Amino acid sequence: MDLNSASLKQALPVGFTGAALDRADRERNDPEALAAALGDWRARLLRLNGLDPELDDEGRLVWGSLADLPDGSQPLYLGYIGGKPHFVPLRMGERHGAVRSPALFAMLGLMPHDQAGLYACARSLVDWHQRHGFCAACGSATELFRAGWARRCPNCAAEHFPRTDPVVIMLAEHDGRALLGRQAAWPAGRYSALAGFVEVGESIEEAVARETLEEAGIKVRDVRYIASQPWPFPSSLMIACVATADDDRITLDTHELEDAIWVTRDEVQAALAGDADVRFVAPPRYAIAWSLLTAWVGSDGCD
Amino acid sequence: MDLNSASLKQALPVGFTGAALDRADRERNDPEALAAALGDWRARLLRLNGLDPELDDEGRLVWGSLADLPDGSQPLYLGYIGGKPHFVPLRMGERHGAVRSPALFAMLGLMPHDQAGLYACARSLVDWHQRHGFCAACGSATELFRAGWARRCPNCAAEHFPRTDPVVIMLAEHDGRALLGRQAAWPAGRYSALAGFVEVGESIEEAVARETLEEAGIKVRDVRYIASQPWPFPSSLMIACVATADDDRITLDTHELEDAIWVTRDEVQAALAGDADVRFVAPPRYAIAWSLLTAWVGSDGCD
Repeated sequence: MDLNSASLKQALPVGFTGAALDRADRERNDPEALAAALGDWRARLLRLNGLDPELDDEGRLVWGSLADLPDGSQPLYLGYIGGKPHFVPLRMGERHGAVRSPALFAMLGLMPHDQAGLYACARSLVDWHQRHGFCAACGSATELFRAGWARRCPNCAAEHFPRTDPVVIMLAEHDGRALLGRQAAWPAGRYSALAGFVEVGESIEEAVARETLEEAGIKVRDVRYIASQPWPFPSSLMIACVATADDDRITLDTHELEDAIWVTRDEVQAALAGDADVRFVAPPRYAIAWSLLTAWVGSDGCD
Repeated sequence: MDLNSASLKQALPVGFTGAALDRADRERNDPEALAAALGDWRARLLRLNGLDPELDDEGRLVWGSLADLPDGSQPLYLGYIGGKPHFVPLRMGERHGAVRSPALFAMLGLMPHDQAGLYACARSLVDWHQRHGFCAACGSATELFRAGWARRCPNCAAEHFPRTDPVVIMLAEHDGRALLGRQAAWPAGRYSALAGFVEVGESIEEAVARETLEEAGIKVRDVRYIASQPWPFPSSLMIACVATADDDRITLDTHELEDAIWVTRDEVQAALAGDADVRFVAPPRYAIAWSLLTAWVGSDGCD
């Protein structure tokens, strides 16, 4: 199978995607439309515990009404789901930082991808506001505008928009094997695709080559795009690729990785199936590394 | 030709890519390595006029020595080019905002893609510092660290990194034609691919579908990735795609676009060749829209 065929990408399950959300972009700048959405008796408000979701028995998000909006909170406008306006509550002053509980990851494992996608949008938006209450240009406290999709400085008039940080995540291929690595902080046995932030002044293809060289000393060429997903910790756009390596000699950057190994399709297939006899544990289904490995196993990898 | 073939992507010229820069990531956190680079008599310093480049007769960037560093400026470490450390001067307090002179665009037309790539890195980095001198989390003045690749807050210890904002830019295809649009502020006759920022909580594929629907009322499926480029105004990552539309009835969002039209391969070919008889002017060579249109003209568009 051709890794780049449209049919593969349509069929490939990717975590945090498929949310049935109409973002109602034009209404964000329209105070009347926003007031109408806020006054709609069918409007829904997401229930959150800090930044974690509340889930029902089927792993779906739990929504209340706008009457549940806590004192001191502001509603951020997500848009329409099933024709009804949906909001998420923002309380400034709360600081969650990089806290990601084991309970959260257990919940992510239960959520359908479309529900995780909605959650990703809500979580990244709330988290961005909470960490960006001041103007980076002049230091003044900023105010929410565009229905929650921006902040504005009353002092210098600078406008600030939520960050989306592109990250490349990739498999180098050599002689029918793929390169995986592990970070020391990961769960025991877990290996996954190498990854890193795209920097200013570089393309996706250049970032894939740079990160693979930096982390594992492997030079790659012929970068092929596979899929993408949002990753709300705090607000990445994961861009999954495969690239060709001409040499398999690993030089590890031990500041980044604890180990890196070349794995076969049979090994990846077994790890994805949860086989305890294989020498590594695959990434979870909601991570794009799972989708990338699934695509690679089902391809001939050449094209 | 298959739009997704690796051979096409290798051959496709893309502006702002191909810089021969080793970003020396590991040295950014290593004060001794940075001191050695700063003390290297071969070190080079980029010449800038505000945020605009200085160019030689071949459209290449002009570099001086670190002795040219203006009073009150700090050197940002770009990394190695040809084994020599290269820096760019940062003077905080200067505010260039969204100013992009006609002279700058004329210069971009003269620069080889690799030189424009280096310039993109330098410009985006300087511009980010100048607009982010204060901590978004607490409002305090921040300090440069990581050799110029981050800022840190002495009050709350928050760390801030340069933004890279992913933008999708795409051609919807229907019945052998592609959808182009124009904004009122563009040069007379110019049409280009539709584009928009990827938001938190969405994939590249979802952003392509949302933006095409928002701006032109066209629903698309089967999104195919073509190429990417950095775009330093101020710091976008342009992600070029093609997608399939089942219907060609345009509903224009006049807040975003002045017009949108369906164009044939023959028309695009003629516009790319500078033919004055065709009904639109193609985007410039350094924009990824040029690369996207070039790829589309050379493909059968089906796959």
